[in-house]
Amino acid sequence: MKFKRSERLIDMTHYLLERPHQLVPLTFFSERYSSAKSSISEDLGIIKETFETRGVGTVQTVPGAAGGVRYIPKVSASDAKEAIDELCGHLANPDRLLPGGYLYMTDLLGNPRAMDKVGKLFASAFSESDIDVIMTVATKGIPIAHAIASHMNVPVVIVRRDSKVTEGSTVSINYVSGSTKRIQTMVLSKRSLKEGSKVLIVDDFMKAGGTVNGMKNLLEEFSAQLSGIAVLVEAEKADERLVDEYISLVKLSDVDVKEKQINVSEGNYFQSNISFLKTGGN
Amino acid sequence: MKFKRSERLIDMTHYLLERPHQLVPLTFFSERYSSAKSSISEDLGIIKETFETRGVGTVQTVPGAAGGVRYIPKVSASDAKEAIDELCGHLANPDRLLPGGYLYMTDLLGNPRAMDKVGKLFASAFSESDIDVIMTVATKGIPIAHAIASHMNVPVVIVRRDSKVTEGSTVSINYVSGSTKRIQTMVLSKRSLKEGSKVLIVDDFMKAGGTVNGMKNLLEEFSAQLSGIAVLVEAEKADERLVDEYISLVKLSDVDVKEKQINVSEGNYFQSNISFLKTGGN
Repeated sequence: MKFKRSERLIDMTHYLLERPHQLVPLTFFSERYSSAKSSISEDLGIIKETFETRGVGTVQTVPGAAGGVRYIPKVSASDAKEAIDELCGHLANPDRLLPGGYLYMTDLLGNPRAMDKVGKLFASAFSESDIDVIMTVATKGIPIAHAIASHMNVPVVIVRRDSKVTEGSTVSINYVSGSTKRIQTMVLSKRSLKEGSKVLIVDDFMKAGGTVNGMKNLLEEFSAQLSGIAVLVEAEKADERLVDEYISLVKLSDVDVKEKQINVSEGNYFQSNISFLKTGGN
Repeated sequence: MKFKRSERLIDMTHYLLERPHQLVPLTFFSERYSSAKSSISEDLGIIKETFETRGVGTVQTVPGAAGGVRYIPKVSASDAKEAIDELCGHLANPDRLLPGGYLYMTDLLGNPRAMDKVGKLFASAFSESDIDVIMTVATKGIPIAHAIASHMNVPVVIVRRDSKVTEGSTVSINYVSGSTKRIQTMVLSKRSLKEGSKVLIVDDFMKAGGTVNGMKNLLEEFSAQLSGIAVLVEAEKADERLVDEYISLVKLSDVDVKEKQINVSEGNYFQSNISFLKTGGN
C-alpha cells in the first residue's frame, strides 16, 4: 500500500507530536509509507517549517547511521507572553485569596488545556537542559509535572507527605517549612528514583521555598542531581527565600488578606536564559 | 499570506489534535489560511480518512450555521488489544506484589506515554457518554484522570483524604473502606463541582470498591450525577463488590502474597458496550 504525500504529512505530524524528544529513524517512516527516503526528508522539511512558522516547535535532524528526526516542543516569545498574560488574568481575581496568603488554583490545576500550555512553556524553557526525571510533591504539583513530562518524554516521581503501602519501601526525610518553621516529613518510594538521575523539581506555589528545598535535600539521599526548578506561582516578599535558581510563570505580590488585595504579574520566565522559537508569520 | 495545502494539513492536524471534542467552525480555518471553505472541507476529508485509517480517531462534521468540525479520539479494537496486552505484560512481574495484595504501579503511573495511552483508551470508551467532569481521589488516580481529561477536553476534580487550606471551604463525608471495613474520610472543595455535573469517576486500583463507592456518595452531596466509572486495575475475588458498573483495563487474580504468585489478565474493557474505530490498513 502506497501513501500519498498528504496522508504522510498528516500521519507523520501526529506521530511526531505524540513522541516529543524521541529520535525516530528516517527508515522507520520510509518503511511505514513505502516511500523513498528522499520523499520523507522533503516531507519532514515541510513539517519543520510549518511547526516553526505556527509556533508549534521544531524538528531536529540528527545525521548518521544512528540518526533520525526528533520533534522538540518550543514556544515563541510572543506565544509565551500571551499564555502568561492569560494565566495572570485568570489568577488576578481577589476571590481566589485564601487564609495565609495562598491562592485558590484548584480550578486551573484541573483544567487540562491550561495545564498543557503550562507544561509546554516549561518544557520549552528546559528543552536544552539535561533532564531524566521530573519530581513533584503530592497533590497540587502532579498535573503540572505530568504536563511538562508529556512534552519532554521523561517520567514523573511523586514525593508524598506520608508513606503508603502501595509505594513499597521508602526513604523519608524531615525538613523545616520555610514560612511556618514547622518540621515536616517527605517520603519517596525507594524504587522510584535511580542514583545519578538528573531531576527537574516542580511545584505549584512557592513562598519561602521550604517544600522545594525539602525536595532538594531528598535528591541528596538518592544521590540524584538537580537540573532545574519550575514553579507555577511564586509569592513575592518571602522573608527569606531558601531557593535561588528557579523559573516561575506568575508572581503574586501585595497580598493583603484582610483587604482582599492582590497583585498578579509575570514571573521571571523571560529573565531566565531561554532560547525562544523564532516564528515567521502567525 | 496564502498557505499551501501541505502546510494547511500539518497545521490543521496539530490544531485539531490539541483540541479534542472541541467544535471548530469551518470559517475559523478558512480565515486562518485565507482559503476557500471548499478547500478546507477537502483538507478535512483527507485528515478524517487518514485519522481513521491510522487509528488516531475520527473527525466529525456538524452541519449548519453553528456547526464545524470536531476531532474525537478513538482507538481501534486491535490497537486497544495491543495496548492492554502491553499493560498486562508490564504488570505481570510478581516483584510488584506488595503486602495486602496491592500492586506496585508507581513507575507506570509516572510514565507519561503509558498514561497517555490509558487516557485515550478510556476517552475512546466514554466518547459517546455525556461527561462534564472527571473525578478521582488523590494521589494515584490523578495521572490517569488528567490523561483521560486531556483526550475528552473536560476538567478534573480531585478528592482528598484531608482538608487543606489551599482548597477553601470543603464538603467532607465518611465512608467505609470495602476491604478493611475502616471508617475513612473524603474531602472535596466546595467550589470545585457544580450542581448537576455529569461525572466520570476514575481510580487506579479497585478491590472491594470502597473508594469508588465513597466518591459516589460524595456525588450525592453535590447533587451531581454518575456517568461512568473507569478503573485501571481491578482485583478479582473481592469478597463483596460494592460497585457494579465500571470499565477496567486489567484484572489481577490468584494473588498469593506469600508465594509471590499473581495472574494478570485483560479487564472487562472489551465486554463493555464500546464502539471501536474501524481501521482500514495499518
